[in-house]
Amino acid sequence: MSSPAHPIGTSPVLATARRAKEAAAALAPLPRSARDAALVAIADALEARADEVVAANAEDIVKARAAGTAESIVDRLTLTPRRVAAIAADVRDVVALPDPVGEVVRGSTLPNGLELRQVRVPLGVVGIIYEARPNVTVDAAALCLKSGNAVLLRGSSSAYASNTALVGVLRDAVEKAGLPADAVQLVPGEGREAVHELMRARGLVDVLIPRGGASLIQTVVNESTVPVIETGVGNCHVYVDESADLEMAVDILVNSKAQRPSVCNAAETVLVHAGIADRFLPRALAALTAAGVTVHGDEAWRAAGRAAGTEVTAATDEDWATEYLSYDIAAAVVPDLDAAAAHIRRWASGHTEAIVTKDTSAARRFVSLMDSSAVMVNASTRFTDGGQFGFGAEIGISTQKLHARGPMGLPELTSTTYVVTGDGHLRD
Amino acid sequence: MSSPAHPIGTSPVLATARRAKEAAAALAPLPRSARDAALVAIADALEARADEVVAANAEDIVKARAAGTAESIVDRLTLTPRRVAAIAADVRDVVALPDPVGEVVRGSTLPNGLELRQVRVPLGVVGIIYEARPNVTVDAAALCLKSGNAVLLRGSSSAYASNTALVGVLRDAVEKAGLPADAVQLVPGEGREAVHELMRARGLVDVLIPRGGASLIQTVVNESTVPVIETGVGNCHVYVDESADLEMAVDILVNSKAQRPSVCNAAETVLVHAGIADRFLPRALAALTAAGVTVHGDEAWRAAGRAAGTEVTAATDEDWATEYLSYDIAAAVVPDLDAAAAHIRRWASGHTEAIVTKDTSAARRFVSLMDSSAVMVNASTRFTDGGQFGFGAEIGISTQKLHARGPMGLPELTSTTYVVTGDGHLRD
Repeated sequence: MSSPAHPIGTSPVLATARRAKEAAAALAPLPRSARDAALVAIADALEARADEVVAANAEDIVKARAAGTAESIVDRLTLTPRRVAAIAADVRDVVALPDPVGEVVRGSTLPNGLELRQVRVPLGVVGIIYEARPNVTVDAAALCLKSGNAVLLRGSSSAYASNTALVGVLRDAVEKAGLPADAVQLVPGEGREAVHELMRARGLVDVLIPRGGASLIQTVVNESTVPVIETGVGNCHVYVDESADLEMAVDILVNSKAQRPSVCNAAETVLVHAGIADRFLPRALAALTAAGVTVHGDEAWRAAGRAAGTEVTAATDEDWATEYLSYDIAAAVVPDLDAAAAHIRRWASGHTEAIVTKDTSAARRFVSLMDSSAVMVNASTRFTDGGQFGFGAEIGISTQKLHARGPMGLPELTSTTYVVTGDGHLRD
Repeated sequence: MSSPAHPIGTSPVLATARRAKEAAAALAPLPRSARDAALVAIADALEARADEVVAANAEDIVKARAAGTAESIVDRLTLTPRRVAAIAADVRDVVALPDPVGEVVRGSTLPNGLELRQVRVPLGVVGIIYEARPNVTVDAAALCLKSGNAVLLRGSSSAYASNTALVGVLRDAVEKAGLPADAVQLVPGEGREAVHELMRARGLVDVLIPRGGASLIQTVVNESTVPVIETGVGNCHVYVDESADLEMAVDILVNSKAQRPSVCNAAETVLVHAGIADRFLPRALAALTAAGVTVHGDEAWRAAGRAAGTEVTAATDEDWATEYLSYDIAAAVVPDLDAAAAHIRRWASGHTEAIVTKDTSAARRFVSLMDSSAVMVNASTRFTDGGQFGFGAEIGISTQKLHARGPMGLPELTSTTYVVTGDGHLRD
């Protein structure tokens, strides 16, 4: 068979990907000092050219308002001098993080004297497909450069002017620091065709990371021949065990659901052991209602609602399956822990599940039955986060099992290679 | 969005995959002792029922001979009582390997007191698509069970009777040991349609590992929505640096090419620094010729061939791209190390590349410029192998960058999950 099986063609997207591959080859042998210098140059340039970025962003804002975009989304799109300064400060934080490249993951001297080292190396070319916020443009580029990768950025068309200005600043800074400007590129072209080409550029692009809503992620997962890291869809569960401390359970439930409902690590379903339901449901309903949460419950929860004079709408399979991302929660009473685990394995998206329990055996069993990126024991689901986990940076939260699972920091943006050193060793 | 996005349908393949997913859920909480007991039961049963397996294998042999299959392939297909005993012994070796499940990969106590542990867990359902040799059926099942996974096996139709008998023995043994028999299943159905369904069973199957020829692997890579681990295509290179010890370079070249040319870690191209070509080419040609190797060379190699009276055929781009898997090698002279690296990055399949050099700086630079699963310094390419690396077992050699790269042992058949333990911790 002939190799390599690189895509053939001369489209602007493939040409961009080929330049990225060349840039990746130039980045691979560079030491940390060279990559960090480029990041410092980026931070400096963002501060020096903030006005230019804000002016470009104003074009996007005008268009968004003209299109009747909701003010909450306009706010997420908006860059101010202060926000640009904060983005630059984030880049400086990335400079200070440990270098993942070159880390020896394992090593040994083999019986024949060969020295074996498994060493972290850059992935090569990382494609990021994302929506809305232009700060992701800089964050993603900084994390990719820090880990020795070239990055292909595909933001949303609503942030086109902002992203173009930001990438212009980044490329100038990278080049000034002596690295190839093509280490940071926007994917050219309008609409879905460009994204489709990017997804089929296997051999040129090493990994695609979609960041955004579930439909974007599903499209990339289904259509890409480039390996994908699936991120961020969170249908998270809180299970309240028979032995739970009631007050702790209510607090963890409300925090998991309502502390910030729009994010992927917010809880979407609560399951309650039947043996504690009588005592827990009234308290939970009162606390959820006080927090502005609407409950979509099974018959036990609806009965508790009627007793309390609180409206509980009837839950259907659609509710068990839904990532609301809003002040809504699905709720059921289950006969025991194993039934809770079976429900979760059936409906969860593999993000984060929590148990509240005083019983160490129940905690162990629950953990062993879950099939998700993170399991919380007596803690809020909201802790599944690279920042909270102490990673210093996060490129996304993987809900898949291969390569990376859970919050992804810099090591997850690397691969490894085996370096084997001998003295003329031959195989018998 | 609704989740989970499991495939809908009631075909035999999907029904098999669903049973595997249920078996995986039952395997996940089991300790090592239960999984090891099942492996011991498998080894015992293979020994006890060897006659039955050999009789089934005889049917495959008759069919293969009737179809005019080459005797070398018939030999690879053949099971004898002795070969079955060897397969059983291999299973006992797997029992003795360390358990990858439950290993704490990293952990810390966060500033707020949360205890964070990243723990290895089974992948879930592993699909293996493979060709020819029926011993792979048992090897793959044993490695999957050891690592807590359910396995879906899709062997070649030429080994259908053998595989059916083997899987029957395995399922009986697994069930006798108290584990679900559906932890080991053959994928039902004839031909490509069954394989296609398996490749689209995302959400039921966690990973597909194709083991076999390049065209099988390319098909799976291109058509699968289930995550794939690409294995085994090896267009491997030996680069002889200006500073190489001539005798060592000849020995490594011949060993890399001719010690076993049919395997993926055999060398397919040799590149020689121009500064050493005059001295190296005549020796290399003599040694390669003595080993029965045909050289497909550039003009420098052809000139050396004319001088030595040895036929060197003219190499084309097709030769640089080809994984011969035979007594053939492509050969070129390059101006320097960086040119060798550029050639390799252009044509390699990302398996194994070797440098022969006395110069430490050249070794460092070569390693830093490679983009392959393994880089050998003064050692034969043939060492890229799970057994040689001391892994005790190998499910394949990954040539991709995500999840696993290079020889894959038991840890590569696992994912990880974060277990986070608190005492009522809430997010501010």
